[in-house]
Amino acid sequence: MSSDGTSTESGVSRRKLLGAAGLGALAAGAVGAGAGYAAGDKPVEVKPDPDALPVPFEGKHQAGIVTPAQDRLYFAALDLTTESRGDVILLLKEWTDAARKMTQGNDVGEFGAVAGSPFAPPEDTGEALGLPPSGLTITVGFGRGMFVDDQGKPRFGLDGKLPERLKPLPAFSGDRLDPAVSGGDLAIQACANDPQVAVHAVRNLVRIAFGRASVRYSQMGFGRTSSTSSAQVTARNLLGFKDGTANIKVEDKKDVEDFVWVHPDDGPDWMVGGSYLVTRKIDMRIEIWDREPLEGQEAIIGRTKGSGGPLSGGDEFAEIDFTKKREDGKPLIDMKSHVRLAHPDFNKGAKLLRRGYNFVDGSNGLGQLSAGLFFIAYQRDPEKQFVQVQRSLAGLQNDTLNEYIVHVGSGLFACPPGVGKSGYWGEKLFA
Amino acid sequence: MSSDGTSTESGVSRRKLLGAAGLGALAAGAVGAGAGYAAGDKPVEVKPDPDALPVPFEGKHQAGIVTPAQDRLYFAALDLTTESRGDVILLLKEWTDAARKMTQGNDVGEFGAVAGSPFAPPEDTGEALGLPPSGLTITVGFGRGMFVDDQGKPRFGLDGKLPERLKPLPAFSGDRLDPAVSGGDLAIQACANDPQVAVHAVRNLVRIAFGRASVRYSQMGFGRTSSTSSAQVTARNLLGFKDGTANIKVEDKKDVEDFVWVHPDDGPDWMVGGSYLVTRKIDMRIEIWDREPLEGQEAIIGRTKGSGGPLSGGDEFAEIDFTKKREDGKPLIDMKSHVRLAHPDFNKGAKLLRRGYNFVDGSNGLGQLSAGLFFIAYQRDPEKQFVQVQRSLAGLQNDTLNEYIVHVGSGLFACPPGVGKSGYWGEKLFA
Repeated sequence: MSSDGTSTESGVSRRKLLGAAGLGALAAGAVGAGAGYAAGDKPVEVKPDPDALPVPFEGKHQAGIVTPAQDRLYFAALDLTTESRGDVILLLKEWTDAARKMTQGNDVGEFGAVAGSPFAPPEDTGEALGLPPSGLTITVGFGRGMFVDDQGKPRFGLDGKLPERLKPLPAFSGDRLDPAVSGGDLAIQACANDPQVAVHAVRNLVRIAFGRASVRYSQMGFGRTSSTSSAQVTARNLLGFKDGTANIKVEDKKDVEDFVWVHPDDGPDWMVGGSYLVTRKIDMRIEIWDREPLEGQEAIIGRTKGSGGPLSGGDEFAEIDFTKKREDGKPLIDMKSHVRLAHPDFNKGAKLLRRGYNFVDGSNGLGQLSAGLFFIAYQRDPEKQFVQVQRSLAGLQNDTLNEYIVHVGSGLFACPPGVGKSGYWGEKLFA
Repeated sequence: MSSDGTSTESGVSRRKLLGAAGLGALAAGAVGAGAGYAAGDKPVEVKPDPDALPVPFEGKHQAGIVTPAQDRLYFAALDLTTESRGDVILLLKEWTDAARKMTQGNDVGEFGAVAGSPFAPPEDTGEALGLPPSGLTITVGFGRGMFVDDQGKPRFGLDGKLPERLKPLPAFSGDRLDPAVSGGDLAIQACANDPQVAVHAVRNLVRIAFGRASVRYSQMGFGRTSSTSSAQVTARNLLGFKDGTANIKVEDKKDVEDFVWVHPDDGPDWMVGGSYLVTRKIDMRIEIWDREPLEGQEAIIGRTKGSGGPLSGGDEFAEIDFTKKREDGKPLIDMKSHVRLAHPDFNKGAKLLRRGYNFVDGSNGLGQLSAGLFFIAYQRDPEKQFVQVQRSLAGLQNDTLNEYIVHVGSGLFACPPGVGKSGYWGEKLFA
């Protein structure tokens, strides 16, 4: 039995129509917002919308890292409220099972949203009924707090399992971190091309965690700011600039190997094939930035606002020439520009796989937008990558952009490798 | 001069490629997120994405009311900080001009985002560069506070212009309204199929208002909960139920005339062709709702969760039979169900044009989702329509849904008629 009378191998289907025709129905609506669910719906034969398709869940690595960045984010950090090792293992098993189903467009649980016992709550909350998989990926990470408590005592019997690379990030000049939107024992990154699908995923995982973990903070995002595939157009952040032009792309196989995935000799074993996730909630002083003349904005970034090309000349992807000088002898690209300070040439070759999203949390009490960038970066070694680059950028004496942005949230998580047909997230950690 | 070297009749174009090919480029990306902007982009010949197209700005009525509901919302309420009538008129003229441009996919101002004086801030903030119009509509409304101050004294010389129908909404049983997210002298409803486009629109209008009006509160929304066209699939709210099945649809020409637009004998003259907007921020107690068994949820709503059909039988759009009884003699559709209490048959025939959106504002300090419905309804007469229906629904003795929802924000605005090629919003009001 299932929500619509059909079922698939991996669980209860929330779609009446499987395959291309069903998914394509999304694109058929005048203002496409989901394939039909009701029994009376007629399939519409159109080309499937690529944004509606599922992303494979199983693999050597977790999906949602080098997956071409979807357009919407819902991120949640949770604190473990149990001290039982068994509870945590069971939670991770249940999460893996639910993610396996949801990413393929299916309801959570055996019976899903609209079947099962009439006397029990539905297993799935239902708001994604009728919506296609929408490229949903669910990526989980483990915070330092899962391994040790505030006094440094091991939790959950994970003595000796704490990765050395999960040591706390250092304080950076200018940080104004709010503990309420920082840290967390567990992270869930849900990315999809439909925010309702991303919200549904996090909501159901949080619900499953009840009694074992509870949400510390969560964040909605839109307009992926860093393309992770060369097939994607570079999107703009809320400063109005293209963001992620020089990002690692999934097509750059060597960079992905060298800078994203944990290798066997990086240790610990259970993290091989995984990656370290750094999140930073960056508030933008939008109204002040908007009063800066175009030349000033471009000098601060080091690129033109229109094409995104470097100020040394050329189009968006042109090689940057930091030596080129203006008539007065000053460099065309300012020494304190963002693009220069963040560049691998000035950071011992460090590169990051960024995957951030714009956010607008409404307005603050002063009539200003509560808006900015929820920065997300994956890497093999946070110290050599994020920390190296952020040390170059942080502080007013460095990146002039710091007049307009402030880091208010921070997180560091060890994302384990992917799972196969039967495994669960972190299986090797608890083995 | 313009952002990309081209210009159109209505201003600076933010697209390199006009027409179907350019708009279609959006659909061509693997994870489509904006047509190319950079000079090096090649046009891709594909079918235009209907979600990317512009909605006409000019007309007898404002766009964004009976326009098929786009999938994303950014709503802002502002307070006027000037006491000058001339300031308000100029603001409305500048807003109209900017909206005329942005809704057609163009930058704000004469020079836009990436041209103009190097010593002046760009006229447009730039984050929508390269994005298609995305169905953007901008709809404005005037709150009671634009006409009279707290003591009831006229403002801006608008003596005798306050519509009788703009009288404050009554208090409803169970309301827990927060003044910080209620009211406002001016409302901006920006709807689009891309949140970045909606955010860009509000941000630039707010920026234009600087020194004359400032934001009181703003709200992001997604997953339109009320289809306003019979061509649209009914979307789901965060209770997991289809929302808006019985909504007025733009195809119901008589209902639109009878229930949405202000008629000449409704008075005042300047509102003829306009509509009254009611907003309610409705928090949902998601975690508690999720623990309610399916039968209970369905009894509270009066419809099935799967197809959305009424509990009296049939599919989503089946006629509701409130007289049908169960074997034990009780009505199949509970007397206190949401669908019954809100039905026109029990509200003197009242109907509303709803246009609400789901919202998730992150989490509250208790680990719960700060989520719910940003309810939006347009109507000819708030007293006979929204107030009539809400009186039926409000209070625990009525709609059993009130155990799970609470109204925390409220707004009432008079939305003037549309403008022609040269007019401005509220022109007749200030004539």
